[in-house]
Amino acid sequence: MKIAVLAGDGIGPEITAEAVKVLQALDLKFEMERAPVGGCAYDAHGHPLPEATLKLAKQADAVLFGAVGDWKYDKLDRPLRPEQALLGLRKNLGLFANFRPAICYEELVGASSLKPELIAGLDILIIRELTGDIYFGQPRGRRSAPDGHFPGSEEAFDTMRYSRPEIERIAHVAFQAARKRSKRVTSVDKANVLETSQLWKDVVSEIAAQYPDVALDHMYVDNAAMQLVKEPKRFDVVVTGNMFGDILSDEAAMLTGSIGMLPSASLNERKQGLYEPSHGSAPDIAGKGVANPLATILSAAMMLRFSLEQPEAADRIESAVKDVLASGLRTADIHSEGTKRVGTREMGDAVVASL
Amino acid sequence: MKIAVLAGDGIGPEITAEAVKVLQALDLKFEMERAPVGGCAYDAHGHPLPEATLKLAKQADAVLFGAVGDWKYDKLDRPLRPEQALLGLRKNLGLFANFRPAICYEELVGASSLKPELIAGLDILIIRELTGDIYFGQPRGRRSAPDGHFPGSEEAFDTMRYSRPEIERIAHVAFQAARKRSKRVTSVDKANVLETSQLWKDVVSEIAAQYPDVALDHMYVDNAAMQLVKEPKRFDVVVTGNMFGDILSDEAAMLTGSIGMLPSASLNERKQGLYEPSHGSAPDIAGKGVANPLATILSAAMMLRFSLEQPEAADRIESAVKDVLASGLRTADIHSEGTKRVGTREMGDAVVASL
Ligand SMILES: CC(C)[C@H](C(=O)O)[C@@H](O)C(=O)O
Ligand SMILES: CC(C)[C@H](C(=O)O)[C@@H](O)C(=O)O
Repeated sequence: MKIAVLAGDGIGPEITAEAVKVLQALDLKFEMERAPVGGCAYDAHGHPLPEATLKLAKQADAVLFGAVGDWKYDKLDRPLRPEQALLGLRKNLGLFANFRPAICYEELVGASSLKPELIAGLDILIIRELTGDIYFGQPRGRRSAPDGHFPGSEEAFDTMRYSRPEIERIAHVAFQAARKRSKRVTSVDKANVLETSQLWKDVVSEIAAQYPDVALDHMYVDNAAMQLVKEPKRFDVVVTGNMFGDILSDEAAMLTGSIGMLPSASLNERKQGLYEPSHGSAPDIAGKGVANPLATILSAAMMLRFSLEQPEAADRIESAVKDVLASGLRTADIHSEGTKRVGTREMGDAVVASL
Repeated sequence: MKIAVLAGDGIGPEITAEAVKVLQALDLKFEMERAPVGGCAYDAHGHPLPEATLKLAKQADAVLFGAVGDWKYDKLDRPLRPEQALLGLRKNLGLFANFRPAICYEELVGASSLKPELIAGLDILIIRELTGDIYFGQPRGRRSAPDGHFPGSEEAFDTMRYSRPEIERIAHVAFQAARKRSKRVTSVDKANVLETSQLWKDVVSEIAAQYPDVALDHMYVDNAAMQLVKEPKRFDVVVTGNMFGDILSDEAAMLTGSIGMLPSASLNERKQGLYEPSHGSAPDIAGKGVANPLATILSAAMMLRFSLEQPEAADRIESAVKDVLASGLRTADIHSEGTKRVGTREMGDAVVASL
């Protein structure tokens, strides 16, 4: 088994180092190979996703991904910006199923913006389709407006698209995930306005018939954005398209107050996956040794479970993280009175010690 | 001056009746004329936006709108569903500028999901473009996929589009609104992924040069959804497209915890406007006399200010609402211990008495 380690920019290298340390401590049989990605890859090779990096990622069973991006690349043309590496990996590896848990850890309830009674015990799994929708739909570009309010003026356009098989496969992923949880799926769309959403809703409903043990409800995206704030615990598994999933998964992550704790997985049909923390590259604190490595360490656990068939090892990591939290260690982002503040490396060491 | 009163479905008629009562109590010179809209219009005339209703709305200086929608119309074809009336009015009247304030009233801080220190004093104005974007962009429909992941399979598609003049005019609205407030605008887009967003960002930046006294920042929509939860008070005026505005304005409204208090205005270039509460038709409590009429009453105030050139009358209504809240009267949705619970009509009467 081979893991491609793409540490990336900002805090990427330091948090990824801790996850690698934890993986090594498990003493399992897999190879790890590093490659540059994002802004640092652009600096070194002129492209955020160099050929060699993409080749490695394709060959590997799993990609452990840190983070990409820094203000200093903001002026580059879009195809050369760091985040294009992520879009390129998703597309080229066919990583259509994105798992974004939003979990509120008991010890961290106080870090949330929400009142404790609304957020304590939160455990939502957002399943976002990741290779379709308006993210990749052609045609797109700029042109002279062919019609509309101001025909002849400069306009830009993008195409939202979903085909039936694309919706079917992500719906199956959601229903199967729900079977292992509380057997409830909420499908989010905007079928009162969008053709794409109407097909989404129709197909998800059809697939639901194959999972009579799972309850399905539909919610409009604007309402979902509200209900997440009002009563987040009403949700269990949420399945939605790429664009709405981008917004709702970040909203849900921030509700927990501890985005530094949240892992993610992006899988293709062969269970190859890319695993990354839900937070970003945080260039403001890069290199200071204060970043929280737990989201990346928990992403490594997801990797063991989903792509490397090592569920026990995944459990070991997750238990170790819980123990470390229970023992009162906290990085700056989740620090509160009465707990012990530690740096990135000490946090990683503590997880290793607790394994 | 003429006001078209379109009460609609669900709680629409009862909350609109209170706003009409308040308007009449002001003893100003305008005519009011009613017409059916939404599900009830479909029932009576076979269409949610009958010709006569549209004609009245076009002739009027302003439309006072209640709410549309009920579960019982869910099975109708999309063009006949109640919410199409709203889309039809926006489009036919050219109501491109949607003002959605998210205000947290001092007395209602406790109703929010958020901790009091994060929400107390919140006063955001979301300005949503309302006649463009993927809501109205052609082409759209179903077809056999011409390319993509599954060529030849059934697919649905929609087109996100914005032209330069569409973005310019809403940007002007936002900067002008900011001049009357704290002189800060946040423009929300997804320019790291979408062509449409890149043009949005470029044009908003260009227009900003004409408002050197207003500070502009740009934020990606996923980050905006997070920052609204994390630190809502960092926002003042937010300007964004139709789709993102739909999601973010509802999220922001729900943050306040008292969506029953939030009005909205949708204006065209001639300052004709449609005024409606931000909440929906709430069919579950329709006809019970418990709905909160204040969002509709405050929408009437916005109407007096924006379309009917009666700013003093608008101020009178807004002060009266504040006084009524201060006196401790509450409808069920905002009720809390130590306050007096009243019904829809009593609340309307109290506002009239406080004028
Ligand atoms: C960086 C960006 C292109 C990306 C996305 O929009 O998918 C990010 O926000 C995410 O959610 O992984
Ligand atoms: C009813 C629906 C079409 C509408 C919209 O999406 O614009 C509503 O959600 C709104 O925000 O006014």
